[in-house]
This record gives sequence, structure tokens and C-alpha cells, in this order.
Amino acid sequence: MNHKMMGRFIAQILAVEAVFMVPALVISLGYREWAAAKAFLLTIAAIAAVAGLLFLIGRKAPNALDAREGMVCVGLSWIVLSLFGALPFVLSGEIRRYIDAFFDIVSGFTTTGASVLSDVEALSPGILYWRSFSHWLGGMGVLVFLLAVAPGSRDKGFTMHLLRAESPGPDVGKLVPRMRQTASILYMIYIGLTLADIILLLLGGMSWLEALCTAFGTAGTGGFGIKNDSMASYSPYIQYVTAIFMFLFGVNFSCYYLLLIRQFRSVFRDEELRAYILIVVCAIALIVLDTRDMYASLSETFRDASFTVSSIITTTGFTTADFDRWPAFSKGIILFLMVVGACAGSTGGGLKVSRLLYLLKSLGRNITQVLNPRRVKALRGNGQVISETVIDNTNAYLAAYVFIVIFSYLIVSLDGNTVGTNLSAVLACFNNIGPGLEAVGPTCNFGHLSDLSKLVLSMDMLAGRLEIFPILVLFSKSTWKH
Amino acid sequence: MNHKMMGRFIAQILAVEAVFMVPALVISLGYREWAAAKAFLLTIAAIAAVAGLLFLIGRKAPNALDAREGMVCVGLSWIVLSLFGALPFVLSGEIRRYIDAFFDIVSGFTTTGASVLSDVEALSPGILYWRSFSHWLGGMGVLVFLLAVAPGSRDKGFTMHLLRAESPGPDVGKLVPRMRQTASILYMIYIGLTLADIILLLLGGMSWLEALCTAFGTAGTGGFGIKNDSMASYSPYIQYVTAIFMFLFGVNFSCYYLLLIRQFRSVFRDEELRAYILIVVCAIALIVLDTRDMYASLSETFRDASFTVSSIITTTGFTTADFDRWPAFSKGIILFLMVVGACAGSTGGGLKVSRLLYLLKSLGRNITQVLNPRRVKALRGNGQVISETVIDNTNAYLAAYVFIVIFSYLIVSLDGNTVGTNLSAVLACFNNIGPGLEAVGPTCNFGHLSDLSKLVLSMDMLAGRLEIFPILVLFSKSTWKH
Repeated sequence: MNHKMMGRFIAQILAVEAVFMVPALVISLGYREWAAAKAFLLTIAAIAAVAGLLFLIGRKAPNALDAREGMVCVGLSWIVLSLFGALPFVLSGEIRRYIDAFFDIVSGFTTTGASVLSDVEALSPGILYWRSFSHWLGGMGVLVFLLAVAPGSRDKGFTMHLLRAESPGPDVGKLVPRMRQTASILYMIYIGLTLADIILLLLGGMSWLEALCTAFGTAGTGGFGIKNDSMASYSPYIQYVTAIFMFLFGVNFSCYYLLLIRQFRSVFRDEELRAYILIVVCAIALIVLDTRDMYASLSETFRDASFTVSSIITTTGFTTADFDRWPAFSKGIILFLMVVGACAGSTGGGLKVSRLLYLLKSLGRNITQVLNPRRVKALRGNGQVISETVIDNTNAYLAAYVFIVIFSYLIVSLDGNTVGTNLSAVLACFNNIGPGLEAVGPTCNFGHLSDLSKLVLSMDMLAGRLEIFPILVLFSKSTWKH
Repeated sequence: MNHKMMGRFIAQILAVEAVFMVPALVISLGYREWAAAKAFLLTIAAIAAVAGLLFLIGRKAPNALDAREGMVCVGLSWIVLSLFGALPFVLSGEIRRYIDAFFDIVSGFTTTGASVLSDVEALSPGILYWRSFSHWLGGMGVLVFLLAVAPGSRDKGFTMHLLRAESPGPDVGKLVPRMRQTASILYMIYIGLTLADIILLLLGGMSWLEALCTAFGTAGTGGFGIKNDSMASYSPYIQYVTAIFMFLFGVNFSCYYLLLIRQFRSVFRDEELRAYILIVVCAIALIVLDTRDMYASLSETFRDASFTVSSIITTTGFTTADFDRWPAFSKGIILFLMVVGACAGSTGGGLKVSRLLYLLKSLGRNITQVLNPRRVKALRGNGQVISETVIDNTNAYLAAYVFIVIFSYLIVSLDGNTVGTNLSAVLACFNNIGPGLEAVGPTCNFGHLSDLSKLVLSMDMLAGRLEIFPILVLFSKSTWKH
């Protein structure tokens, strides 16, 4: 493997991280939080030293990576990013143990939003900003960002491999022929929507810091709150703005691009978008029916139900209601939404609505073939034939998904919690949602789990965000035998 | 569709059921249980009437069914079998409600062993015999039985379709070129092993009725006990005999055939058998380690652990220990074993060990192909290439499995139980195991669930036993539109 090139690549990623830490440093200085400011300064220095060294070693390496190296690069980048990203929490003394800090920053970058902290309001503004900003950076992807801004002509296959590995969904489409331009367009849409969200939140009376952190958590579909009760104490206006933007960030970004270039018909006909909207509407209706006796008014029921559905299916994880106290059927819907996740090509996690559609179509075809062995049928999505590779990958994805859930469940169950706690902890982390049920429910946190569970769940979050394979490759013997 | 032929076929199946009800009638007469005897007599008369009518209508229909009709036939046969099989329970007054009787007999035929009854000791001997015998008949399959004994030359494709649809596992092998002979050999092995079990149980001091019922439950990997505490109050000898025979009935029957024709090497090298043994050994070791503090002696720990592992992985469901009180990790292992199930071509249910191997291999190949897009690799099992159809079907099976579990979970959760109860109820029924965890755990029963849940779980049991597709086909629009 081209280790030097990989080192140089990771150096670039780290440089991006250091640059994005500067606003957090400035905020800490502004609020006169010297311990936090010192922590950011030290971390930036450490990153600069390591990145500089990696860059020097790899500066002359050829500019090409194959598929395997691209995957390994993506997996390693995210781990290194998290290892350094956790430092400010520990150096400032605001999170005492490194494993806890690591869990929280992995949760941040992977846009999970699960936390070990019981009292986030005790964190200083700079740290809160960094914690929420990790959602924004992780949401669209730091490699995609690098691709959008970094100068120089790159190997085409190389950039494609990276984008494929980091972008969510079964088949990564190029919006325009050039990858770099695609990455730029994605980030422009991302920034535009985030700004709209920030403005609407400011109009609702939030402070700048609140609005920034909430918008970062919404845009990345992350879910780190800055209040201990997440979003429960905010006004209905702010809750509705957030619910709508969570929903919007769960839509495939190529739909927004199509809107921008006025191809309204393609957007309207998009099968995944239709299925996504259908699932959201049905889930809200069923939960409203199931929980209406628990609320004084229908408007309150509808607000909590729509906020929760939008938060869970997009895998954001903000909460306004303690859905762990809802009836079992509503909790069942929540678990289902956890597994489904948002649309491919959005910032949301989970299995993705398009994978669900592929699985259903492939299953339908299989039944047809069992019944009529001589009939051969191609699968179609949005009128076009779906390639067999995509279908194979989707099936493999489901298998990997099931195996990882079972394995993680077994490890986490060593802590001795209930089936509901263990299963929902794994699903909430693996699908990058955040809160689970029972002992890891909306009013609880992940702090009481063992270090081993925290480590496994951290890996689950990374595997979930990077769609399994880049992390699985790191654990594969053949990757390291050269 | 060839409705008349299908009717004639179902008439034959019903005739087999009526014949097999005669011993239960005799036992009821012997014990002077007149209500039960009358119930069996009435049921046999009803079956004779319906079967006679169906046979008359269809006597001249051509003797051929295509793949779809074969599947529909299998699905319908099992439902009709259960509809009539439930009658003696209700007619004798020993189970008051028909839906409860239906649940119990479906649980019997599908070799699940889940029951709505809290006091099985109150049942009369004839009813107990019929309840346990349904396991034995359902274990190897009533259609396979018909194939083995019915005279006449049948359409080859027809018998193959039926055997495929009723036999467990991803690819049904023929032991010998002729299907009818294959069916006979399977039943000979089945009867031989059952007799050996009965003799060993009689030597352990069981009464004839006890030995018969226990052996039926073991052979079919069913799990209906005749005591309220299942197998807990029996001697260690009887518990070990049952544990070993449960394990043996979970092995692919073709291994026994290979042993009979002295191909020891093929048996020793069988990948599925090796994986099955490995999983059993590991599961026992892990549970012994995890539960050793709960027992006075290691031998007791080992006995309960090995009995439970053998009972759960083979999907039998006999219990000696209340594993719902075991630590969470052991319960996690139990849930894992529930999903895995026994070997293909055995009487056990679940996903099957060979499917697990196929999924792992297909996943491994997929990772290789993502990393080396130009390499094409065939999958091998036991040294032979696995056909792509089998792999596609296995993947579709997993997808169908996941969808059915999610759907059933949502319906069952309407009853308002915990996540652990709902999930384990669905897994225990769908995988034909019997006991679940928490409110449907080893010391509880399914009686407290709603009628809707009982109906959905009954369909899950049938779908699990018939490997999903024959039941899915019954719910498919295209099946009924001709």
C-alpha cells in the first residue's frame, strides 16, 4: 500500500480539523474561558506538529490510491480525526476520561448525538461550539469538504473512491461530470440550508451560540443539544422550525440540485423521496393515534409526534418528548424508523430509504422467480435499471448490518442491562441516531456503560456513518498483510 | 390454477391427519376420557366428509402442478391441517377458545412449542398425545410423509416442488435420484432415531405416554412439554438424553444417510456440521462462564447450559432453567441462537446454519469485490461451487426475514408489552422455538396476548416452518388473480 500518500492525505484532513478549531478557540477567548482556550491552542499545536510530520514524510509520494487504499484512508481519517478531536474536552478538564471524550466526539463527527454527559449545560461555550460543529463537519463529510476546496488536479478514480466511501447511500451519483464540482455544489446547498436554519432560529429569539449549535446539530442530523432537556423547553415555533429542517436535511441533496436547475418533475417523481414522505406521514399519524390520550391537546400530540418522527428517521436525535414513556406500539414505530433512516445522499444515517426499496424490489423479484423459474426480470428504480452490483451490495450491506448488530449486542449485553436497552443502544449508535430506549432513553445518557461498550459503540457509530465497509476493511487481515 | 388437483391433494393430506388421529382416539378410550374420545371421533368424521368431497370433485383433474401451485398447495395444506387439528381441543372443552386451540396446534405442527396454556397437566392423555404428536408429524413434514407412502407415479417436477417447499434449508438435496426413495429414507432415519430416544427415555423410568410425548417433542424439535415446568423436574439422565437427542435432530439428515452408507469422511468434512458443533460448544462455554455464580455446582451449570443451548439452537424449546433470569449476556447468546437455528435438512427451524455460512461467504466476497472490482470469485461450500440462485435466494430470505420480524413486532407491540417481550415473542414463534424472554419467557406462556397477536404469531410460525415463501405466496395478489 501507498503508505506515504495515505499519510499525506491524513495530514490534509488534520489541517482542515485544525482550521475549523480556530472559531472554537476564538469563542473560548471571547467568553474568557482560559482553560478551554488553552486546550484548543494545545490541540491545534499538536495537530500542526503531527500533520506537518506526515506531510514531510509523504510529500513526494505518487498521487494515486486504489479502491482498497481509498477505503482504508477514509476509515483511518475518521479515527484520527476523532482521536485529536477528543483532546480539547480532556485538556480543558471538562470531560475527565479520554474514552468518554472519544465517545462524544465520535458521536459528534458521525452525527450520532449519543452522549456520556448528564449535564451538557456545564460545558463552556467554546467546547459546546466544537461539540456541535463536529456534527456539521461530519454531516456532509470532511473528505468531501477537502475535495471541494483543495486545489490541484487529482486522480479521477481516487476522488471517486473517496466520495463513494464517505457519502451515504447505495449508489453515489455524480451531479455533474466533475467530482470536484459535485462536492462544491453539495457544500453550497449544505451551507445555504444551514444559513436559512440559523436565520429562522435567530428570528425565534435564540442567542447566536444557541442558533449556531442547534443549526449544526440539525444540518448534520447530529442531535447534540446544548440544554439538558434537548429541545423540550424551546418554543413551539423553534421546535417546528427544527422539525422541518431535520426533515429537509434527510432528503437526498441531489433533489435540491434538481430543484435549483428547475427539473421539478424529476424531484416529484423520485421514488425514494416519495417513500420517505410516505413513511414520515404514516409514522406521525400512527403515533398521534397511539399517544393522543397522553396529551391535553391534539396540537401538542401532533407537535411531539412530528418532531420525534422527523428527529428519529433522519437519525438526528433531538428530543422534545420522553418517547420511552410512550406505549409499546409507538416505541415499535421508533425502532422501525431507527433502522430505516433517511434518504441516500443526505446527511442522515441508518439503512437508508433507497436500500429499503431495493431490498423490497429484490425480494419481490425473488418471489416471482421462485414461482416462474424461467422469467428473468431487471429491477428498476425511478424508471432506470438498477445495476446488479448495487443490488448485491445492498444485500451484502443488510447481512453485514445484521451481523454487526448481533455482535455489538452481545458485547454491550455484558454490562447487564435489559434487552430493550442493549438493542436500542446498538441501533441508536449504529444508525447514528443518539437516544435509545430504557436506560439509554431520551432522558438518560451512555455514561453508565462500560469502557468496552463505549469503544464498541464508538466503532458502531463510525461503521454506521461510513456505511460499514471502510471500517470493516480496517479489521480485515488482508488489508494489513502486504 | 389447477384448483381441482389442489383440492384432491389437500384431501390426501387430510386423510393422513385423520389416520394419525386414531391413536389419540384409542388412548382417550383407554383412559376412559369420553369427552376427548368424542372430540376425536367428531373431528375424524368431519375430516372424512370434507376430504371425501374434495376428492370427489378433483378425482379427474390432471396430475400436475407447477412451482406456484406447489407452493400454494403447501401453504394451504398446512393451514387446513391446523384448522382441523385444532378441533379436538375445542370439541373436548379442554381449550375453551378456538383461536387459542389454533395457536397451539399451529405451534405443534410447526414444531414451535409456544403455548397459550398455563396448566398443561390438566389436559387429558389423548389430547396430550395429539398435541405432542403434531410435533412429530410437522417435524419431518406431512407432505414428505405422503410422498414416502403414497402409491402411484407422480409428476417429477411436482414432487420436487413440494419437497423443496416443505423441507427446511436453502438448497434441498436429493439423497438418491428418486424423490420418493429420498422421502422414504428420511422417514426411516427419523423413525429410527425417535425409537432410540423412546427406548432410552423408558430406561430412565418414564411412563409410555411420557416417553412418547417427550420423544415426539424432541424428534420434531417441537418442545411441547407434558409438565408445567417442562423438563425441569426430570432426572439428570433424562435431561441429558433429551439434550443429546435435540442436538442430533438438529443435524442435517443427509449426514445420517452418509453415515449409513459409510461415507464417514464426507460427514466429518461437512462445513455446516462443523459450524453447528462449533457454535454449540462456544455457546455452552460462554453461558457456563457467565452463569457459574448462579449455581451451587459446575455440573449443574453445565447441565442447564448445555440443555438450554441444545434446546434453543435446534429451536425445540424444552426448558430446565428459567433462562430469563440469567445475566443479560447469556440472554444475548440465547437471542443469537434463536436467530441462527439448526442445520438445513433437519427438523429444526430458524435461519439455518448453512444460510449463516452463505451470508458470511457472500459478505466476504462482496468486500473483496469492493476492494478489487475486477476480481470475480465463485463461492464454495464443502468444496463445491454454490449456485448464484441459492445465494440470491439466501439474501432474499434474509430480507424477507427482517421485514416479517419488523412487521410482526409492530403488531405484537400493540399489546403494550416490553421491547424484550415483543421481540422475543416474534423471534421465538418465527424461528419455531417456543419460549421467549420476559412476559413470554420459560415460566410464562402466550395466553395473555391479544387475539390479533396470536393470529399474527400463528402466521409467523407457519412462515418460519415453511421457510417464508409458501406463506408469502398466499398473501400475494398475483396468486389469486387468475
